[in-house]
Amino acid sequence: MTLLVAVQGWDAQAWAARFQTLLPDVVVAVLGDDIDPASVRHVVCWRHTPGSLVQFTNVGVIFSLGAGVDHMISDPALPKVPLIRIVDPDLTNRMSEYVVMHCLMHLRQQRRYDAQARLKLWDDDRAQPAAQNVRVGIMGLGQLGRDAARKLTVMGFKVAGWSRSPRTVPELETFAGSAELPEFLARTDILVCLLPLTAQTRGILNKNLFKGLARDGRLGAPVLINAGRGGLQVESDILSALADGTLSAATLDVFESEPLPASSPLWIHPAVTVTPHNAAMSEPEAVAGFIVTQMARMAAGEQPDGLVDRASGY
Amino acid sequence: MTLLVAVQGWDAQAWAARFQTLLPDVVVAVLGDDIDPASVRHVVCWRHTPGSLVQFTNVGVIFSLGAGVDHMISDPALPKVPLIRIVDPDLTNRMSEYVVMHCLMHLRQQRRYDAQARLKLWDDDRAQPAAQNVRVGIMGLGQLGRDAARKLTVMGFKVAGWSRSPRTVPELETFAGSAELPEFLARTDILVCLLPLTAQTRGILNKNLFKGLARDGRLGAPVLINAGRGGLQVESDILSALADGTLSAATLDVFESEPLPASSPLWIHPAVTVTPHNAAMSEPEAVAGFIVTQMARMAAGEQPDGLVDRASGY
Repeated sequence: MTLLVAVQGWDAQAWAARFQTLLPDVVVAVLGDDIDPASVRHVVCWRHTPGSLVQFTNVGVIFSLGAGVDHMISDPALPKVPLIRIVDPDLTNRMSEYVVMHCLMHLRQQRRYDAQARLKLWDDDRAQPAAQNVRVGIMGLGQLGRDAARKLTVMGFKVAGWSRSPRTVPELETFAGSAELPEFLARTDILVCLLPLTAQTRGILNKNLFKGLARDGRLGAPVLINAGRGGLQVESDILSALADGTLSAATLDVFESEPLPASSPLWIHPAVTVTPHNAAMSEPEAVAGFIVTQMARMAAGEQPDGLVDRASGY
Repeated sequence: MTLLVAVQGWDAQAWAARFQTLLPDVVVAVLGDDIDPASVRHVVCWRHTPGSLVQFTNVGVIFSLGAGVDHMISDPALPKVPLIRIVDPDLTNRMSEYVVMHCLMHLRQQRRYDAQARLKLWDDDRAQPAAQNVRVGIMGLGQLGRDAARKLTVMGFKVAGWSRSPRTVPELETFAGSAELPEFLARTDILVCLLPLTAQTRGILNKNLFKGLARDGRLGAPVLINAGRGGLQVESDILSALADGTLSAATLDVFESEPLPASSPLWIHPAVTVTPHNAAMSEPEAVAGFIVTQMARMAAGEQPDGLVDRASGY
C-alpha cells in the first residue's frame, strides 16, 4: 500500500519525509517515482498536473494540503473518490491574524504613515474613525469566516457576513444569496473575501460588486481584502475601481495568476498591498498530522473531518 | 465662572468651541484671552507652557486632554489642585487597535513582504510562527494594558504583563516590581510598553532592559513597541540594540523629542516603524463629553473618574 505525494510548487520530498516519519510502515512515494500505480491507495495533492493521477486506479481518497480544493477539482481526470481538505485550528488562526491585521492597517491608515515616514513628515489625523465606526463585511462563513468575524468583533469593528446559502452564526448579522447581496454590500466599508472558488463564485469580485459597496463610510471609498482565491477576482476591474475611486485600497493575497507576474501593475500600486498567497499556511507538521489522523479514521470506518462536497466544490 | 483652555500643539479654538457647545452657560476662554484670572475655576490642559497657569489662583481642578499627565506634572508651578486624566473606552479601544496591529505586523513579517513587493519578489515563508508561538509582554497594566492583553490573547498570542506594583488581572500571567522584571523580560519576544512617564519609569527602555529580553524566540531577536511616552525610551540605546542584533525591530509612536526631528535616524531605519504619537487619540467629542461629565460629578460632590495620584504620577 502506497501513499503518493503529488505536490508541485512546494517541497514534495520534504512532504514525503514528513509522512514517512508519521507512517513508518507505509510506502511513501512522490509522483514520478518508479512504483506500481496499482499499489497507490492514498494521494496527498497540491497543484498536481491535471491528468497525472489517472493512472492510479486503486486510489481510495485524495487529500488537499490546503483548505481549498479548487486546485484538484479543476482536473477533469481526477479520480472519482472522496476528497479531504485541511480543516485545522492553526490554519484558521493564521487566516484571522491576516484578516484582523489588514483590516486594522486600513482603519489606522498605516500606508499613509509609511509614506509620511519616508518623507520624515510628522502629521497625525485627529479625526480618524475608531473600529466601531467602520463596517467589515465578510464573504464566506465557513470556519475561516466565522473565526475572523468573531475576532474583528472583539477589536470593535461592526461586522456582518454573507454566504451563498443561509447560515446562522451566533452574535453575527448575516446575509445570504444573491437576493441579500446588495444590502450586505451597501453596509460594508471593508470587504473581506474568504469564499471558496467554485463555478458560482468565479469572478464575483468585479466592478458591479464594487459599485454596490458603501458610499457613506468613514474610510472614504471602500476597501477590498481578498484572501480566498485569485479566481474570485477580476484584476482589471480592481485596477479600474481604484482609478475611478470606487475602491480606495486593496489588500490581495491571491491572484488570477500565481506567482503574480512581474508585469502586473498590482505589485507597486500605491493603494495595493500584495502578499504571496501566505495568509494562512499551516505548519507542515500540523497538516501532515491532520491527514494521518483522517487516514486512521477512515481505516477504522469512521467519518473523516474535511470531507468535500464535490457538487458545491468545497 | 470660567473654563480655561490651555492647549498647545492642538487646535485650542476648536476645543473651546466644543466646550462652549456642551456648556452654554459657562464662559469658555483660551489661554491669552483677556479675562479676569480670578474667574477661572476649571482648566483643560494639553502641553501648556510651564508656569503659565500660576496666575489662576482660584482654579479647582485641571483636566488633561489625554490619558497621560506627565505634560502637566512636569510644570513645577502647576496649581496644587486635583488633576483628572482621560479614562475613556474609546481611547482604550484605539490603543488596543494599535498594539494588536503592530504585534501582528511583526508576527506576520509585514515589512518583509512590503520590501519584497517593491522588488516584485514572490517569496513566502512556510515556516513562519503562529501567534501561539510568540510571547508578548506588556509593561503597564492599567486600563490600556489590560485591554490590549485581553485582545492579544484572543488573537492567540502568549501574553504576560508587568507593572511596578503587583496587580492581579483575570486570566493573565503577571509580574511585578524590579525583582520580577528579569523573569518577565526573559519570556518576552515582543515587548509592548504602555507605562506612564514618572520619575521611576524615565529611561526604563534602555540597553540593559533590551539585553534581558528572550533570546530563544521564534521571531529571531526580540521586538520593541513603545506607545507610552517618549521619555520612557533611550533612543541611542534602541539604535545600538538594532545595530548589534539585541533587537530585531521597533515600532515607536512616541519620542524623546516630538515632533520627531528630521535629523533622527529612526525616520528611515529599515527596522523601525514611526507613527506620529497617534496610537490612541480619542475623538475630541468623546474627550469633551468625559470632561464635562466629571465637572458635573464634582459639582454634585461625587468622586470623578480619572483622578490622578500626584505622588505616583498617574
